[in-house]
Amino acid sequence: MDTLHRGKQSIIFPERPVLSAWASVVGKMEGEGPLGKAYDRVVQDGKFGEKTWEQAETKFQQTALELILQKAGLERNKLDLVFSGDLLNQCVGSSFALRWTGLPALGLYGACSTMAEGLLLAGAAVNAGYAERVAALSSSHFAAAERQYRFPLAYGGQRTPTAQWTVTGAGAVLTVRNGKGPALTAATVGTVEDKGITDANNMGAAMAWAAYRTIRTHLEDLGRNAEDYDLIVTGDLGKLGSDLVREFFAGDGVDLGDRYTDCGVMIFDPTQQDVHCGGSGAGCSAAVLSADLLPSLMTGKYRRILFCGTGALLSPTTAQQNRSIPAVCHAVAIEKNI
Amino acid sequence: MDTLHRGKQSIIFPERPVLSAWASVVGKMEGEGPLGKAYDRVVQDGKFGEKTWEQAETKFQQTALELILQKAGLERNKLDLVFSGDLLNQCVGSSFALRWTGLPALGLYGACSTMAEGLLLAGAAVNAGYAERVAALSSSHFAAAERQYRFPLAYGGQRTPTAQWTVTGAGAVLTVRNGKGPALTAATVGTVEDKGITDANNMGAAMAWAAYRTIRTHLEDLGRNAEDYDLIVTGDLGKLGSDLVREFFAGDGVDLGDRYTDCGVMIFDPTQQDVHCGGSGAGCSAAVLSADLLPSLMTGKYRRILFCGTGALLSPTTAQQNRSIPAVCHAVAIEKNI
Repeated sequence: MDTLHRGKQSIIFPERPVLSAWASVVGKMEGEGPLGKAYDRVVQDGKFGEKTWEQAETKFQQTALELILQKAGLERNKLDLVFSGDLLNQCVGSSFALRWTGLPALGLYGACSTMAEGLLLAGAAVNAGYAERVAALSSSHFAAAERQYRFPLAYGGQRTPTAQWTVTGAGAVLTVRNGKGPALTAATVGTVEDKGITDANNMGAAMAWAAYRTIRTHLEDLGRNAEDYDLIVTGDLGKLGSDLVREFFAGDGVDLGDRYTDCGVMIFDPTQQDVHCGGSGAGCSAAVLSADLLPSLMTGKYRRILFCGTGALLSPTTAQQNRSIPAVCHAVAIEKNI
Repeated sequence: MDTLHRGKQSIIFPERPVLSAWASVVGKMEGEGPLGKAYDRVVQDGKFGEKTWEQAETKFQQTALELILQKAGLERNKLDLVFSGDLLNQCVGSSFALRWTGLPALGLYGACSTMAEGLLLAGAAVNAGYAERVAALSSSHFAAAERQYRFPLAYGGQRTPTAQWTVTGAGAVLTVRNGKGPALTAATVGTVEDKGITDANNMGAAMAWAAYRTIRTHLEDLGRNAEDYDLIVTGDLGKLGSDLVREFFAGDGVDLGDRYTDCGVMIFDPTQQDVHCGGSGAGCSAAVLSADLLPSLMTGKYRRILFCGTGALLSPTTAQQNRSIPAVCHAVAIEKNI
């Protein structure tokens, strides 16, 4: 048995599990953003024909799952395993999406880092021979998140300048043992960091240190430099949080330059859309990965990227109890296959 | 690369990852129950010296983690990976327990099936060579769960006869590549089942079908009979739910007899403790595993058990929206090492 552990927190996937299909299903506002034409489906109705926002979130996830099966030409019962999670209390977006599917399912909680965590575990499962075909799913919904984490929408609360906008949407990615597409080649599991930030409307800042730590550890563990990646992309730090990541690296003498961006920055246009610091939510990085990053690995725009999911691990209860905001970041290296 | 997938939903661990240390830390009422003398620590103060029940739950989990490190004689930084989860919204029991530890951590959401899900993934990680030493943690807290899922305690709500009592406590298990102790030899990932039960005070019934399906699939996938296990034990179905599992198997012509029990039945004494249908919560099966099941695999009372974590995947929001209760059950086979 080989040891696939590298350095402090990283693992490698010598079998190069393949990402053979991916899909994104988003809401109206995301469809009006810079990546609007790239999503598989833009749903105009925030309730997606359902009675509640929570049920709509489930339908977003179900639709993304069905789309990857269609794209891969796969019967549902040929999937060996699903990793999924979301931001709703008790992850009900995911659990309800999977009932009656008969699919073996492991639930994750990584807040907005869920897609990266799912890909890490999907890659690990396929690389080890535990499964041939594994799906990773995650979702979020602006309206369901607002009422759960903040205020009822009808209250019309004023948003602070550092606030981010929870993405309505879901992403799904299929990882397989044999197929065509970009390959998962390594991953780094994050540690739970907490720098004492207590402002639940400034989650980008709370997550930035976790992102910096994981990216730096990944590079150290694998003996790489930032230049070994065409793109390092965090999940949903937004403008403020991603500026902080740049600053932390600058403190190490590393200028990330154009090599670094953030899905929360990419998903909305701040000059046209009133989103303050950018997008957030477990659906944010999942949708951008599927709509933009993986297609860019197919066209050759990128040869190797580091996809870094970022999650703020607070709850409304911990915020009310004035506790600070723990955060985590998990990273997966994805490469264009030759 | 060998395929370690078996049948529909199962995987095998030929490297036989070893459970080398385990710990349980529980509350006063659990300490007064039938397993009272077997826990590592019984904490009389429900707040465990903290300001809130949620912070107490975090401390239960931290204490269980510290105990397994002490028992294994391991420095904390020698742990490669932690899988953890709990029932609090956004799994804050776990996230807050792990901040500042510097430990690579993957968050799970499996409701009360979390310990089985964590052991499944810990076994998979060690078997594949991704990690040498992996901890699985989970917890629950009666008072934190009551106010989150049901009513403020001060309201004094009447409990229905089918209700279960959320265990206050945490369990931790250390899985290693090389060591002494029982071995993880196979696991079965559950599917999300939903038979339409909408009574959130009858979660045993909601979970029973998921438990039956996973146990039956496990036996089919591995070509085994119930008699191949000295004990098949579910997580927290309680009296009513575990009777249903017996009935489902009886319908297949299988009499489980004394070979089957449930951690929620084992943890309290219904003749002395007013717990209605028994114990529940993510801490229930974790504490019973550590206090009773693993020690019994060391003494030789059992040679092979099937530990089946059961989770009801509802939220207060889905209950208020009158939706039925999805449930899942993950199973791990644990064997006495020769």
